[in-house]
Amino acid sequence: MKCKVCGGKAVISLRAYNSALCEKDFISFLENRVFKTIKKYKLINDKDKLLIAVSGGKDSLSLWYILNKLGFNADGMYIDLGIGGYSDLSLEKVKKMSDMLKRPFYTFHLNDAMGKGIEAISKKIKRTTCSACGMIKRYIMNRVCLDKGYNVIVTGHNLDDEASALMGNLLYWKEEYLWKKGMMLNEEEGHLSKKIKPLFLCSEREMAAYAVLCGIDYIYDECPFSIGAKSLFYKELLNRLEDNSPGTKLQFLKGYLKFIRQMNIEKNRREMKYCINCGYPTVSDKCNFCRIMEKYGIERNIIFEEYRPTYEVFE
Amino acid sequence: MKCKVCGGKAVISLRAYNSALCEKDFISFLENRVFKTIKKYKLINDKDKLLIAVSGGKDSLSLWYILNKLGFNADGMYIDLGIGGYSDLSLEKVKKMSDMLKRPFYTFHLNDAMGKGIEAISKKIKRTTCSACGMIKRYIMNRVCLDKGYNVIVTGHNLDDEASALMGNLLYWKEEYLWKKGMMLNEEEGHLSKKIKPLFLCSEREMAAYAVLCGIDYIYDECPFSIGAKSLFYKELLNRLEDNSPGTKLQFLKGYLKFIRQMNIEKNRREMKYCINCGYPTVSDKCNFCRIMEKYGIERNIIFEEYRPTYEVFE
Repeated sequence: MKCKVCGGKAVISLRAYNSALCEKDFISFLENRVFKTIKKYKLINDKDKLLIAVSGGKDSLSLWYILNKLGFNADGMYIDLGIGGYSDLSLEKVKKMSDMLKRPFYTFHLNDAMGKGIEAISKKIKRTTCSACGMIKRYIMNRVCLDKGYNVIVTGHNLDDEASALMGNLLYWKEEYLWKKGMMLNEEEGHLSKKIKPLFLCSEREMAAYAVLCGIDYIYDECPFSIGAKSLFYKELLNRLEDNSPGTKLQFLKGYLKFIRQMNIEKNRREMKYCINCGYPTVSDKCNFCRIMEKYGIERNIIFEEYRPTYEVFE
Repeated sequence: MKCKVCGGKAVISLRAYNSALCEKDFISFLENRVFKTIKKYKLINDKDKLLIAVSGGKDSLSLWYILNKLGFNADGMYIDLGIGGYSDLSLEKVKKMSDMLKRPFYTFHLNDAMGKGIEAISKKIKRTTCSACGMIKRYIMNRVCLDKGYNVIVTGHNLDDEASALMGNLLYWKEEYLWKKGMMLNEEEGHLSKKIKPLFLCSEREMAAYAVLCGIDYIYDECPFSIGAKSLFYKELLNRLEDNSPGTKLQFLKGYLKFIRQMNIEKNRREMKYCINCGYPTVSDKCNFCRIMEKYGIERNIIFEEYRPTYEVFE
């Protein structure tokens, strides 16, 4: 297998692109793909202050690394969900990347701030772990932006994550989410911060290859609570479709983007207020997070620990 | 396992409905489902003259039988694609049902009319067999309605057929088909005849059970050209989703119906003309069928053989 660009020995075949690339050209290809995604979909403005949500996994750490390499400065944010050794190891990986990039990051420790880890909280508020985790993460991410002066949340959702979520939303026609799965959610859409997903068109397999080839040290294990999650099941089915017809996932998402752009689907613009408790945007007097936590008597002392790498470059 | 209606011995479990039914109650359930579908979605008017496309398979033969039982008179139409023994055996099954129901049917013999079977035609016109077959069937069905005074084509597409087609259209966002996959296509939408699918909400498994329990003699084998077809692959994936979450296929289609109703998606109404060759509606001077057949020099002598069962009831 030869590299389509230089003719050297290819290390990865990209059937969706009918291509194969060597190490150097694959790294360029992937970084270029992220850059072109940012430019084409106008994800980042000159004045934006970026905060990237890092989990310690291949996607978010690689994205942090790529953004930095491309000249988009981003600080990090790690949410320690209190899942024992898994969370500790993840934090180690984030610290290592922070040191390497010389960019600081914030940590939110769920155990310290709310007296419990994610498993206990989800049981208490009677939600699945994934649902509770999603709600808390969204809240915390927006809060840290508000408190620390950022305006853009960057996440490492990749092609497979997005295709799997879209598949689930289409199977059940979940209209409250269905047309919001684009690459960017603007501030004016009721979200405190702009949210962008620069890896929207990069597959899981490509991201894993990139991380390995660049020597990025990430946590290999999936979150222990994700076992049996529907999203993994959808991913598996989508991978079978992809094997059968390479490029399917990419076409599925690109077709979707084109469709929502054409349709210009009317957004439910609701008048926004601010939570009387925490100042978070909400449609009622209290935000969803405060309401649920109050209902089940869970304390919440939202503090962020700041980690500053040695030799940090201050701007 | 007990019947949810009468408490007797159940013969089938219906996980999508969280139910199990005995033979008698399952037959009632399925027939009632077809009846309610026809009524709720206003598929049939008093003045409609129905022609059902029968292939010899479980779906179309059972539907013909059910329509008759429910008092909706329908004559049949069989297209003999010239697939050797498979087509001959299918025709036998159709004759048997015609005799049982005492309803006549028309046969179109591809070999006689066009000098070739479907395999040779598809090769000649450079299409896949399924694509050529679909195009010819659509044309022939509309033609027989036009020539013989019917205004509604009834087809036996079931829940699995429709869910699988929808899945394929969504994966590739095929907008030319995507929003036309409802239960009924009206005449004014550029189709010569109204087309209805009363089995839209009945699964393949339910239809097979119904046919067996009612002693309907149908052809078991799939069309030999369908092997490896994407639709079968999508069906298999949808069945895995269904196993994982019973009711998924039903929700997928019902959500879709609700969505297209709400969206009222603008149809591409194009000015219709009539083919200068055969009178078939078209957007250009010649219809697609005539154009393709002329281009590849395939003769077409559209004649329909009429089969009248013994003891036929004339209306």
